[in-house]
Amino acid sequence: MPAERLRYDLSDCSIARALELVGEKWSLLIVREAFYGLRRFDEFAQALGVGRAVLAQRLKSLTAAGVFESARYRRPGQRARAEYRLTDKGRALLPALLALSQWAERWEPPARGPVLAPAHAGCGRPVSVTLACDVGHEDLAAGDVALLPGPGARRLA
Amino acid sequence: MPAERLRYDLSDCSIARALELVGEKWSLLIVREAFYGLRRFDEFAQALGVGRAVLAQRLKSLTAAGVFESARYRRPGQRARAEYRLTDKGRALLPALLALSQWAERWEPPARGPVLAPAHAGCGRPVSVTLACDVGHEDLAAGDVALLPGPGARRLA
Repeated sequence: MPAERLRYDLSDCSIARALELVGEKWSLLIVREAFYGLRRFDEFAQALGVGRAVLAQRLKSLTAAGVFESARYRRPGQRARAEYRLTDKGRALLPALLALSQWAERWEPPARGPVLAPAHAGCGRPVSVTLACDVGHEDLAAGDVALLPGPGARRLA
Repeated sequence: MPAERLRYDLSDCSIARALELVGEKWSLLIVREAFYGLRRFDEFAQALGVGRAVLAQRLKSLTAAGVFESARYRRPGQRARAEYRLTDKGRALLPALLALSQWAERWEPPARGPVLAPAHAGCGRPVSVTLACDVGHEDLAAGDVALLPGPGARRLA
């Protein structure tokens, strides 16, 4: 008897589709750098130590996916350069980045403490990623969450 | 003048270290399948349509990283097989998976609606990933979050 999971077609799964767009190391690190304020190709290359061909390809993919928008920008006395800025869609990746960061800080703690301290701009207090249900049960653990088939789940024949 | 970001060494960044462990498509999809209840090599292979060599390599890496533990298991009348079960460390990846899923559902909506409907086991209501600060300001947007250097951030010379 197959596992219940194997009765469903998950080809349209949103986890998979997210990973198609941003699912390898460099893409999410480029997004990280954009959150830290970088915009120019040379800045991304310097910050990440990534090869220029890989960087160009990832910026192109992320721009095509609507995570970045690119614009020409000219500083006084310099030639025009492309800048890459996060769109609303790109900025909406922050919870995913912070969830990964929080996981590694808990389970692979960095030797000198966290490099990043996300804080609420309004009150200055530390920000974390939490799971909550829509009637207000908060700080749910994985064991509190049932992963049920949604409306888009198709049973396999 | 370099961007402020370029004054810091982020080599110990927890986002990067998380992505070193689970930062490519197959690894997080294998973890997804484990949340859906799969445990055996053949089940992962069938569900994901991934090549057996890649699957074996990823399961080995994820087990070495402590995301899975493997055990020998024998069903009546069958030969012993390896089973891969999520550890606490592995189950702690759920917020990251749900954050990615939520992002794609909002920004790349699936044609027939979500495949996955995470629900609070206690009350049955939908579960979502949120950003909150530790004095209780909830549902923070990316623009509400300041990304400040943490104690482990080293300024470059």
